[in-house]
Amino acid sequence: MTALLSEIKAVVNVGLEQFEQPVGSSGSEVVHIDWRPPAGGDVEAARITAMLLSDSRVDTANERALAAFFAVDPVLVGVQPAAEVIDGLGGRPMLLHAGPPIAVDEMCGPMFGALVGAALFEEWADTPEAAAALLRSGGVCVEPCHHHRAVGPMAGVVSPSMPVWIVQDRNSGGRAFSTLNEGLGKVLRFGAHGPDVIARLGWLRDELGPTLDAAIHRLEGGALALTPIIAQALHMGDEVHNRNAAASGQLLKRLAAAVVQASDIADNAARGVGARVIGFMAGNDHFFLNLSMAAAKVRLDAASNFEASSLVTAMARNGVRFGIRVSGTGDRWFEAPARHVDGLYFAGYGPDDAAADLGDSAITETAGLGGFAMAAAPAIVQFVGGTPADAIANTRRMERICISVNQAYTIPTLNFGAPPV
Amino acid sequence: MTALLSEIKAVVNVGLEQFEQPVGSSGSEVVHIDWRPPAGGDVEAARITAMLLSDSRVDTANERALAAFFAVDPVLVGVQPAAEVIDGLGGRPMLLHAGPPIAVDEMCGPMFGALVGAALFEEWADTPEAAAALLRSGGVCVEPCHHHRAVGPMAGVVSPSMPVWIVQDRNSGGRAFSTLNEGLGKVLRFGAHGPDVIARLGWLRDELGPTLDAAIHRLEGGALALTPIIAQALHMGDEVHNRNAAASGQLLKRLAAAVVQASDIADNAARGVGARVIGFMAGNDHFFLNLSMAAAKVRLDAASNFEASSLVTAMARNGVRFGIRVSGTGDRWFEAPARHVDGLYFAGYGPDDAAADLGDSAITETAGLGGFAMAAAPAIVQFVGGTPADAIANTRRMERICISVNQAYTIPTLNFGAPPV
Repeated sequence: MTALLSEIKAVVNVGLEQFEQPVGSSGSEVVHIDWRPPAGGDVEAARITAMLLSDSRVDTANERALAAFFAVDPVLVGVQPAAEVIDGLGGRPMLLHAGPPIAVDEMCGPMFGALVGAALFEEWADTPEAAAALLRSGGVCVEPCHHHRAVGPMAGVVSPSMPVWIVQDRNSGGRAFSTLNEGLGKVLRFGAHGPDVIARLGWLRDELGPTLDAAIHRLEGGALALTPIIAQALHMGDEVHNRNAAASGQLLKRLAAAVVQASDIADNAARGVGARVIGFMAGNDHFFLNLSMAAAKVRLDAASNFEASSLVTAMARNGVRFGIRVSGTGDRWFEAPARHVDGLYFAGYGPDDAAADLGDSAITETAGLGGFAMAAAPAIVQFVGGTPADAIANTRRMERICISVNQAYTIPTLNFGAPPV
Repeated sequence: MTALLSEIKAVVNVGLEQFEQPVGSSGSEVVHIDWRPPAGGDVEAARITAMLLSDSRVDTANERALAAFFAVDPVLVGVQPAAEVIDGLGGRPMLLHAGPPIAVDEMCGPMFGALVGAALFEEWADTPEAAAALLRSGGVCVEPCHHHRAVGPMAGVVSPSMPVWIVQDRNSGGRAFSTLNEGLGKVLRFGAHGPDVIARLGWLRDELGPTLDAAIHRLEGGALALTPIIAQALHMGDEVHNRNAAASGQLLKRLAAAVVQASDIADNAARGVGARVIGFMAGNDHFFLNLSMAAAKVRLDAASNFEASSLVTAMARNGVRFGIRVSGTGDRWFEAPARHVDGLYFAGYGPDDAAADLGDSAITETAGLGGFAMAAAPAIVQFVGGTPADAIANTRRMERICISVNQAYTIPTLNFGAPPV
């Protein structure tokens, strides 16, 4: 039971950059928790804490939730416009965003900027000013990705005509969705919404998305299993959150010939579609990230709504608040202020210039990857500061706040042990 | 000086499968050496040993040879028929093979079988029997790849119309050559020469080679630097001899868009050339091996012929004898019997059914990669038997028989230390 409590306390403290923070070690410190519901206060927190402490149903429920998590076999089955596959995006103007719910007026700059860009992309407004006014007037419904079986990195904005990956559980048919990764530089997910950003989104919609969809349908069985790609990537230096170079390479390898076949039809070859699509995929080492997130989402949705389970099923940040969902409490969010990022800043800038922690991408850690599998990716520790030994120690430390290990994956530097989940 | 002696002794003992063999530790054991020239006997060995022991020019010469080795910047500049770029292959019938020189009558089965296949491929004979008779009659000149700036895995057979990678030192213009990897299964390099093998060689000649050459010429600068690919692959679980999955993926990533562009000309797109080429590359995780070997060869050729240098510039096996070349003794081979392979055999077969160690691929170890960089590739230790800790220990052990470390590369599991060379 102490393990469960420390798990929940640690989860509230967890942001990717905060793994080094001590989370306390004695059971009594657990009473001091940041994850009380903002509205409900200590009474609610105390009720849940008491439930966890006193009820042996929790262990049984967690076993069932984890079994559901592991039973999922996430496969990529297509790419379609969001409006056609995500419930609610097909009707009145609606945009999705990362993290727990947040009002437009509360949003940090990057998230609001991304919504402005999405409104321009959808041609709901002609200028950024008009788009901002439309959003502030409530003319666009704004809801979390997580409420629509979707996940998005950083601002995580999804608009109706954006193409989204469709990841499906081969066994249950359950689905999760994520946008196509735009690459680095000036991109919507960081809040940029200049003409080049909107033009790239147009290319994703008109050429990349349809070509990828056609390519996926040309694969054997019309689907691409994602667990083998992730398992292989963990052997090749990725943790599939901050490093996706190997997984993106695997994706390219498995899709490239089908992409060429798909672009050999009609006049696409003459227009150079195949070369553009492959060049874009080959030039973006984070292209797999959104698939990694959707694969985690479809697993965690399957583990949701197990009564009395304390399994954390979402960790997400909206740039203002960090929120988690717990299996036993279903769709409810438990929130705390999002922390400022202890990271690398451009010269002259620092944490005070930046928005707080942002994005749905911590779904990878929720599913036992990313920072939890950092031992697999010693090469990125130089980027985040540290040594390969730190990375291994970090994964070992995460084991202490986890219920189980992920049998689907092994990590060579852990002597082929499995990462915690 | 003890280090130099033990280096040479160890080199003679080295085959990829023999790293675990104790090589002795005291100086006196070094006198018992297998690398005496088969013809010259102990007198010659004693002369060289004495030279190494007594002559301080060796250290200076080795420094110069190593400087030349490191000064090479190997870049891929094209793919052309062997006869057009390899000296000697354009005239009378000639075939190249792996390892030190060997007469046709002495050859092991796989090498002779590969020569038969090459003779059929070149249409010098209509049947395997006629090809064998032609070879036995001396109708085809047979020489080592290493005598022609080439390297080949396993049987290593190169025939005039086979396409070869051209790897060039960006600084000196020196070149090395290797065939295109055929994939696994029934392939010429294992001695197979059935109709399917010959047909595949025809496709390599007619479609794969020309498309790759056109793609390389479309790259910026018309060349592809190989050191960054190898450096990246060492961070992704390859040691670029027995594991080339990451390097092959990198190669695909860097060439794929250009391949599609190159196949978008004429009616190639309609004929599906691009999809076939990309599908072949994507389906062969060893596709980079031959490039890894040619990159090592061009470096080691640059380090050759430094008077008094004891640097080993080639290690190669012809299925009967293991031979090395040393910088200070130029093109001369020092040979010992090739060892039988302590590896995995199909059920019902064992070392007695197999040819002895074969192939030029130990050029990668000669250049400080492959088994010497095994710490980079913990994932393959399960294949060769062992643990990731063994792999790291192995690379550390190789440091003891090496002159320097390779500054161009780092290995995460060595805390970003460099592999020995």
